[in-house]
Amino acid sequence: MSVYDKLKQAGITLPPISAPVAAFVPYVRSGKLLFLSGHIAKRDGKPWVGQLGGQLTTAQGKQAARGVAVDLIGTLHVAAENLDNIDRIVKLMILVNSAPGFTEQHMVANGASELLVEVFGDIGAHARSAFGVAQIPFGSCVEIDLVAEIK
Amino acid sequence: MSVYDKLKQAGITLPPISAPVAAFVPYVRSGKLLFLSGHIAKRDGKPWVGQLGGQLTTAQGKQAARGVAVDLIGTLHVAAENLDNIDRIVKLMILVNSAPGFTEQHMVANGASELLVEVFGDIGAHARSAFGVAQIPFGSCVEIDLVAEIK
Amino acid sequence: MSVYDKLKQAGITLPPISAPVAAFVPYVRSGKLLFLSGHIAKRDGKPWVGQLGGQLTTAQGKQAARGVAVDLIGTLHVAAENLDNIDRIVKLMILVNSAPGFTEQHMVANGASELLVEVFGDIGAHARSAFGVAQIPFGSCVEIDLVAEIK
Repeated sequence: MSVYDKLKQAGITLPPISAPVAAFVPYVRSGKLLFLSGHIAKRDGKPWVGQLGGQLTTAQGKQAARGVAVDLIGTLHVAAENLDNIDRIVKLMILVNSAPGFTEQHMVANGASELLVEVFGDIGAHARSAFGVAQIPFGSCVEIDLVAEIK
Repeated sequence: MSVYDKLKQAGITLPPISAPVAAFVPYVRSGKLLFLSGHIAKRDGKPWVGQLGGQLTTAQGKQAARGVAVDLIGTLHVAAENLDNIDRIVKLMILVNSAPGFTEQHMVANGASELLVEVFGDIGAHARSAFGVAQIPFGSCVEIDLVAEIK
Repeated sequence: MSVYDKLKQAGITLPPISAPVAAFVPYVRSGKLLFLSGHIAKRDGKPWVGQLGGQLTTAQGKQAARGVAVDLIGTLHVAAENLDNIDRIVKLMILVNSAPGFTEQHMVANGASELLVEVFGDIGAHARSAFGVAQIPFGSCVEIDLVAEIK
């Protein structure tokens, strides 16, 4: 089953790639590696604002991380021309906008990690780092960047 | 026009590469990739101390990020032997020392991103992640690391 | 002297590789690069909880970072099959769980950097970024990820 079939099965429609808001680009290819820029969580097309351990629950953060993963897959679709050209999801850096006492960044991060495995199967299993940051551009609750290997 | 001409045109003199303060090195080459260590913002040769959203304005942060980019180019000059050997600026991670309510990390980051495009042209356009951190070594306001591809 | 001899000389026993707590893996290989997931500081098998500049001193943080480096070497041992297959420690990202005023992240980070040079010699000297984060999963005091090159 192709990655596109799995996306359809999961009821996921890929978004158009976001135009960067500054002098940078959504992705750069170097050899077989694709480096994707940090993508921030959005809801209804706007930054999903809030801190985990503050206004947002872990469940909401996990949902936000899943949404960022959908956007990252949308960027991979453009970068790799075809998602079936992806050989491996290599590494994720998952930033969680965290109030001082919040320590469940790994549970928030699972929203992205689980979707990638659901969609890509074994080659979706990745190395990752997840941690709490002081803030994220536009006050968004989650930001994720990604390294993938292309065939 | 070579990268050095563009630097001269922008009135930029490259600094000597900083000696690392610990058991690490300013850069490592692996295959065609150069991985540069995090460089912190300095002013008059000392760490430029302060938080965005606290003592420092977004404009000052942007200026600090531009200064870090100059230092990163100085390190690239040594690492690549000649800046015209750089094939692509691949990825930046831009850390902004942020007071709780500050959400303009992307605008601070543009100080570095815009300089790289100014100096390197199209191959200076990079993927990036920018976010707010709780602190930076020596209390510096901005820290940036970089991955570049060499010819 | 092999890396294993140096570990023995330093009195270090490698731990078994930790099972990941979620839909991700401890490492991914892409070409000659090994990308290791963020490893958190532990003591007596449990997360070593606390903030630098809060409950923990810089000396304790440095010890925690050294412990994380031991765990990272344990993962490298599995990933590379033999540590003598490691060609270079390329890059570390060192996250320090930091109370607002703490600015000695570089000194904490040295705990990991110095061990890698002690064990691997010249090829252990790496690029790195060290900074203060708002929180780390499970409230751990230090988290480190690593990129290495394999022969």
